[in-house]
Amino acid sequence: MSDYPSILLENAVEQFASLPGIGRKTALRHVLRMLRLSEQEVEVFANSLVKLRKEVHYCRQCHNITDQELCPICQSTRRDRRLVCVVENVQDVMSIENTGQYNGLYHVLGGIISPMDGIGPADLEVDSLIERLGREPIEEIILALPTTMEGDTTNFYLYRRIQNAGLDNTPKVSQLARGVAIGNELEYTDEITLGRSIVNRIDFKI
Amino acid sequence: MSDYPSILLENAVEQFASLPGIGRKTALRHVLRMLRLSEQEVEVFANSLVKLRKEVHYCRQCHNITDQELCPICQSTRRDRRLVCVVENVQDVMSIENTGQYNGLYHVLGGIISPMDGIGPADLEVDSLIERLGREPIEEIILALPTTMEGDTTNFYLYRRIQNAGLDNTPKVSQLARGVAIGNELEYTDEITLGRSIVNRIDFKI
Repeated sequence: MSDYPSILLENAVEQFASLPGIGRKTALRHVLRMLRLSEQEVEVFANSLVKLRKEVHYCRQCHNITDQELCPICQSTRRDRRLVCVVENVQDVMSIENTGQYNGLYHVLGGIISPMDGIGPADLEVDSLIERLGREPIEEIILALPTTMEGDTTNFYLYRRIQNAGLDNTPKVSQLARGVAIGNELEYTDEITLGRSIVNRIDFKI
Repeated sequence: MSDYPSILLENAVEQFASLPGIGRKTALRHVLRMLRLSEQEVEVFANSLVKLRKEVHYCRQCHNITDQELCPICQSTRRDRRLVCVVENVQDVMSIENTGQYNGLYHVLGGIISPMDGIGPADLEVDSLIERLGREPIEEIILALPTTMEGDTTNFYLYRRIQNAGLDNTPKVSQLARGVAIGNELEYTDEITLGRSIVNRIDFKI
């Protein structure tokens, strides 16, 4: 006999336990919680995931998450299209948006260069960033990657790629003011520090 | 504009954040993980929850979780039907089963008496336990509730109900040996301590 009184229970626990940071005991607690919801509530939960996966994809221009062809930020006519802020992931777009201090566009790399994890420039949205520079009237690229070794490496790589792209008008490259504590992820930085660091951004220096 | 780039993303985050112990940031991480799975994998996840909720219910006899009328333990012909172990919840059944030291049946109360949380005897499977005693050849009731104030209160209440039930053969009432650390939940007790405490169980004393 399995450890679980029902194979259905075991299946659901396995599914939850496959999520990052959820162990078997926590998974079981979530599953038992599901059993206390109504059938309809569980269906709403399940459908929200299926619908999300079916209809949500990445913005054609900035690779943020959206359920349309272009994300709401790229579609907006009130954003400053001369500014593009380069971030690691979708959470970082949301973090910067929450500061209310930035009115430009974004470019989501989908990660940062990390040889230890086998992630190189080809795995990231770098080529599409360079193409954007040739196509759109971008005057400034703000590098807003984590202040870690990998973030610094990626900053340096992007800077060189931008300088060597043979553009008619090479944009200015800036980076977040170093108010963000070294070693921290953007996602966990408080809004005031993060807001100030995008306002006080500085020229990118090698 | 909402904080999230898509209402579908927001809906899915809300669903995850409704689970106990999951905040908005963790919920978002789980949801973004869903986006990296294939459509089919997300459907498997979603269906495991819907199927669980539709087909799993409580065992008619012991109130453990099962997808049949009686749970596998109540159905088994190899268990000692003279012994019934009373536990707070389904996790505790699994914890005791994992010790491999117990061969009797169970009775899941579905909680313990907790006036602070407004949980009284009527909210628990107490009446059905007393009915079982009148119907089945039970010789010993093992009280295996948490070693907390609420657990002690519930033990005492159950003991009195059993004594006053007017049964032809009042079963012996025992409790787990006090090897379980005071203040701990059964679910987090190591298997050796828990196994020993069910083997060395002692008479229930007021």
